[in-house]
Amino acid sequence: MRYPEHIAVVGVTGYTGFELARILVRHPAIKASTFYVRDTHGKKCLAELFPHLRGIGEAPLRSLSVAEIKASNAGTAFLATPHEVSAEIAPVLLEAGLRVVDLSGAFRFRAAETFTSWYKLPAPHANWLGEAVYGLPELYSAEIAQARLLANPGCYATSVILALRPLTDAGLVAAGSSVVCDCKSGASGAGKDSRRDLHFVEVDENFKAYSLFSHRHTPEILEHTGLPEERVVFSTHLLPLARGILSTIYVTLSAAHSAEAIEATYRKFYAGRSMMRIWPAGSLPELQHVAHTNFCDIGFSLDHSGKRLIVVSCLDNLGKGAAGQAVQNFNLMLGIEEQTALQ
Amino acid sequence: MRYPEHIAVVGVTGYTGFELARILVRHPAIKASTFYVRDTHGKKCLAELFPHLRGIGEAPLRSLSVAEIKASNAGTAFLATPHEVSAEIAPVLLEAGLRVVDLSGAFRFRAAETFTSWYKLPAPHANWLGEAVYGLPELYSAEIAQARLLANPGCYATSVILALRPLTDAGLVAAGSSVVCDCKSGASGAGKDSRRDLHFVEVDENFKAYSLFSHRHTPEILEHTGLPEERVVFSTHLLPLARGILSTIYVTLSAAHSAEAIEATYRKFYAGRSMMRIWPAGSLPELQHVAHTNFCDIGFSLDHSGKRLIVVSCLDNLGKGAAGQAVQNFNLMLGIEEQTALQ
Amino acid sequence: MRYPEHIAVVGVTGYTGFELARILVRHPAIKASTFYVRDTHGKKCLAELFPHLRGIGEAPLRSLSVAEIKASNAGTAFLATPHEVSAEIAPVLLEAGLRVVDLSGAFRFRAAETFTSWYKLPAPHANWLGEAVYGLPELYSAEIAQARLLANPGCYATSVILALRPLTDAGLVAAGSSVVCDCKSGASGAGKDSRRDLHFVEVDENFKAYSLFSHRHTPEILEHTGLPEERVVFSTHLLPLARGILSTIYVTLSAAHSAEAIEATYRKFYAGRSMMRIWPAGSLPELQHVAHTNFCDIGFSLDHSGKRLIVVSCLDNLGKGAAGQAVQNFNLMLGIEEQTALQ
Amino acid sequence: MRYPEHIAVVGVTGYTGFELARILVRHPAIKASTFYVRDTHGKKCLAELFPHLRGIGEAPLRSLSVAEIKASNAGTAFLATPHEVSAEIAPVLLEAGLRVVDLSGAFRFRAAETFTSWYKLPAPHANWLGEAVYGLPELYSAEIAQARLLANPGCYATSVILALRPLTDAGLVAAGSSVVCDCKSGASGAGKDSRRDLHFVEVDENFKAYSLFSHRHTPEILEHTGLPEERVVFSTHLLPLARGILSTIYVTLSAAHSAEAIEATYRKFYAGRSMMRIWPAGSLPELQHVAHTNFCDIGFSLDHSGKRLIVVSCLDNLGKGAAGQAVQNFNLMLGIEEQTALQ
Repeated sequence: MRYPEHIAVVGVTGYTGFELARILVRHPAIKASTFYVRDTHGKKCLAELFPHLRGIGEAPLRSLSVAEIKASNAGTAFLATPHEVSAEIAPVLLEAGLRVVDLSGAFRFRAAETFTSWYKLPAPHANWLGEAVYGLPELYSAEIAQARLLANPGCYATSVILALRPLTDAGLVAAGSSVVCDCKSGASGAGKDSRRDLHFVEVDENFKAYSLFSHRHTPEILEHTGLPEERVVFSTHLLPLARGILSTIYVTLSAAHSAEAIEATYRKFYAGRSMMRIWPAGSLPELQHVAHTNFCDIGFSLDHSGKRLIVVSCLDNLGKGAAGQAVQNFNLMLGIEEQTALQ
Repeated sequence: MRYPEHIAVVGVTGYTGFELARILVRHPAIKASTFYVRDTHGKKCLAELFPHLRGIGEAPLRSLSVAEIKASNAGTAFLATPHEVSAEIAPVLLEAGLRVVDLSGAFRFRAAETFTSWYKLPAPHANWLGEAVYGLPELYSAEIAQARLLANPGCYATSVILALRPLTDAGLVAAGSSVVCDCKSGASGAGKDSRRDLHFVEVDENFKAYSLFSHRHTPEILEHTGLPEERVVFSTHLLPLARGILSTIYVTLSAAHSAEAIEATYRKFYAGRSMMRIWPAGSLPELQHVAHTNFCDIGFSLDHSGKRLIVVSCLDNLGKGAAGQAVQNFNLMLGIEEQTALQ
Repeated sequence: MRYPEHIAVVGVTGYTGFELARILVRHPAIKASTFYVRDTHGKKCLAELFPHLRGIGEAPLRSLSVAEIKASNAGTAFLATPHEVSAEIAPVLLEAGLRVVDLSGAFRFRAAETFTSWYKLPAPHANWLGEAVYGLPELYSAEIAQARLLANPGCYATSVILALRPLTDAGLVAAGSSVVCDCKSGASGAGKDSRRDLHFVEVDENFKAYSLFSHRHTPEILEHTGLPEERVVFSTHLLPLARGILSTIYVTLSAAHSAEAIEATYRKFYAGRSMMRIWPAGSLPELQHVAHTNFCDIGFSLDHSGKRLIVVSCLDNLGKGAAGQAVQNFNLMLGIEEQTALQ
Repeated sequence: MRYPEHIAVVGVTGYTGFELARILVRHPAIKASTFYVRDTHGKKCLAELFPHLRGIGEAPLRSLSVAEIKASNAGTAFLATPHEVSAEIAPVLLEAGLRVVDLSGAFRFRAAETFTSWYKLPAPHANWLGEAVYGLPELYSAEIAQARLLANPGCYATSVILALRPLTDAGLVAAGSSVVCDCKSGASGAGKDSRRDLHFVEVDENFKAYSLFSHRHTPEILEHTGLPEERVVFSTHLLPLARGILSTIYVTLSAAHSAEAIEATYRKFYAGRSMMRIWPAGSLPELQHVAHTNFCDIGFSLDHSGKRLIVVSCLDNLGKGAAGQAVQNFNLMLGIEEQTALQ
């Protein structure tokens, strides 16, 4: 694959888009970047949009034009756009020969019905669904390296799948048992829209559950853990902090195990994976350990019977849960070290 | 004045309106309250609007109709509405014989030009300006007791005026010297509108100055301290917390004083005022001491020369800075203890 | 029972003690209060200890002397002390004829072994355990009214038991099924000690699980829900906020139910209980709704099968979870309205 | 100067030490680092002390031994130690031939009396004071490049001096006028000690002034702006956030100026300085723009008279205010790009 790379980044107005921009402006394998928003309102470069990036982000900012991207020499387009927008423009860019890293939910499911059923929208991109690779590098690095269309996973889904997959693959989950995934996210995960329920005063000193039994990340969790819907309870909560997801996951094991055996299962599964950090038995990761990083940290506690397991999975929802993971996937697609620009 | 009182409260959707409702539903001298919002969206009582008040706030909620308020037996109307709305409906209610406690800026200035110049709007209520009483109970309790139209002060203005007035009245401020008022407020003071700059992620872990040399509370400060504009620098900042204003005020004294003398000046000025708490020389109030109260706490530090004074003034912007002070004024208008329902 | 009441309050240095003081200084049935701390360091009244209470808390502050309390005319002693201290002084005060409201864990268990096993201490007060009444007013109001020794429940335990007991009493929990209680608390629940892990920077923008499978509130939950240990998983987490506990509780029902039936079960169980607020099916309480109150709010969500239930229980850990509940119990012991001084 | 460099870092337990470690482990010009704490408690590497650094910080952790550092091939020692410790060990290391970058206040003053008067301690290192270079790279880069003993400035002092020096150098400050510096810092600036006033609950939703007229950074400000003590009022406040200092600085200009002229003065003074970002007239930096960076951002507002100026200066107290600036100084001492490892 040719590189240094020219890239186009679409939709940098949200928190994920900003984080993506912040990482990409320092990426050593990228030769040139152009950033696109729906309307630049006269701003000419990234730093005019994000004063945080003054002195760093002099890359051009442009009003979105798919035609312009097609005509440019960009090899890869990142889409940090709503799923409706991604569904519309990704096929056009793919047909023009670009690779696409899409951060929305538009291409995350093999079956169009899954998308339709959870997103309440037609799946207009059905012919591209088979092409899309689900971008969880710790599970699918070979496919990712060959991907033309990369569907970057949901933040909650990343957190839960990475915690459960080593257990389900090893057959450790008791047959028929329920798995409870109690997940808590910071407010940047809810997007940057001016919503009354995201006003500072509504989130500060507050905590709440939301979208019980109805969160759109549910089908990703089912598809990539292999657990049937009736055995997974997945809940989401809003934390009064900006960044991070901590998932507390309750598993009944098929037999009594030692803590050492559980730790070994995780270590073996993630051997050589630079972004996974397994905590020693008896210690637990906290959100502060992963904020502003691309790590996913996993710890656990086992009860005295050795059959009841609580797994704690932490990541930064803008890092490993979104923009960081997108760049990790991009690195694999480029054939370079997966942690490039991520440390 | 007759009481128990029937009251109407207009505009309870914002944070000030909510705080006002929270205080009024427990007010022992109020027999009946009706709450008005622009559109009830089918909600029938206060608790449907504010789940915090379930079990307490069963008072009726109605879509705003000035005609209905006029036709009701309400004796007092509280207006927690934008200044444009207050300017329009206060005269109508006054003419119908109600007393009005207005929490907006519409009636805070004697001179129509002051309003026009700072609010960039005509002052359509000019004939009522002379009638309005500026509702700072520690300065104007006699006038407040007789008021028909009460203009509740701005939150920053309350904080600054209460800190400065004892000094200016005692002639302690050096002639010609500048007074710097560096004020910091929690985010509830910015209102409940869905503004992007009030998104949780924009305020959390952030701090900023805003409206330098242009804040609308400036003319209130000038009018009630008697200081000319060129001698007052007033700045405002947004704190990452919900409630409270702390003002740090820098004064050059006309002569060297002892800390005891300064403390005595404050104590004498506020003798008998239940809502003012003067801190002993050398100690300083903090926002946590006044949050969720109607107190204004004042402390200070004097330098070794005895001529440079820093005054720290703390209040809850929704309490003494808005809703609490409105109820304090209402109590004085009713002729009952000023702290009723405020402790 | 005679009242107005003289009371003694021991241990007001922590957050629970402060909240208790804040409520009691305004309690209309209390004629006189004396507050005790280990060492007053020369401070003479409550307001010198807590500047928040200047102008309100002029009650005397004394260095702890059990002899002095015995010799006073106090009828009730509140103990906001560590369990070791409560275990030592409660029996002395009881034998002197006082009633005791103990906020520690010292007297919460019938069986001395339970205390010993979870608190790793001998239970020196064994002869008083049978006398102690577990102070959950919504379950045991008749016993509380007669109590001489009141063991105020743990904050987490209150939150979980109030959510589960209507279900277990109605036989709604599937036989043999596990109940997962994922609980999150604000930092005031961890006490006021100067611990490095409670430094602002360690809690702010952070979130973590702790004490998995080992929290001391576990045996209270087991005893008052009747569920065996192997069927309850109870986890605790630290939220970056000051006040509040939200528990998310996962229950498998014994048969399919409608949301209306679940709501009716809760409403019936808590009929007439002024401190319980049941949320309509499909809506969920948030911490902001209960902060600074004595309410426990309960809402739920049921999946499409009608067999998987998520219950959300919210309370203020210093209110209904500690000091407020202690006063509610005290009110019942006095024979007055249980919400006195709590609204 | 020879490099790649071996370094020793002493005192990595506090927040500044941690930030220093976090930057240095990624520094491309450092060949080997050894980290020293008073007592390792058996921990062997940096990542055992700071789980945030798992996978990155495998550098050895050692119990502090000055002899060991002297015997090592370290060329530079960073001291993130209290000033008493720095005062003791810096001379020993210097005499052994190491360069020292000291982050404490021990060597910040030319005159031993200044240290003695503000720190209430003898200045035992008097013979080294003349050698020490005050490490503000935007003012003293030439001296820094030659320094053997580098005194890294205080965080508040950096913020204030960088805002004022362009004005004082250009003679813009009115003769005899007072300059008010109202500074606000996040809680990491107060250190990591287990102090009751830094408990999460004491800082969260709180704000306070402290150390009025007595903060130890005062003499640094006086020395490096050239203003006499009686003309500077410097106040400090504690913000409920982790990182950042925002200083609001009030200046009376010697004559009326345009905003363009003020902006030009700053731009000219800081031309070519990569870590300074001057904001266009009329816009203001916020703490979020500089958190987790090594930038100092400066904006201002001028009143309609052109004579009253408010300058807003923002930096990260752990970045440009401490660890980042120490590395910037180290880079200059090594003769490499000053922003190395800082972006």
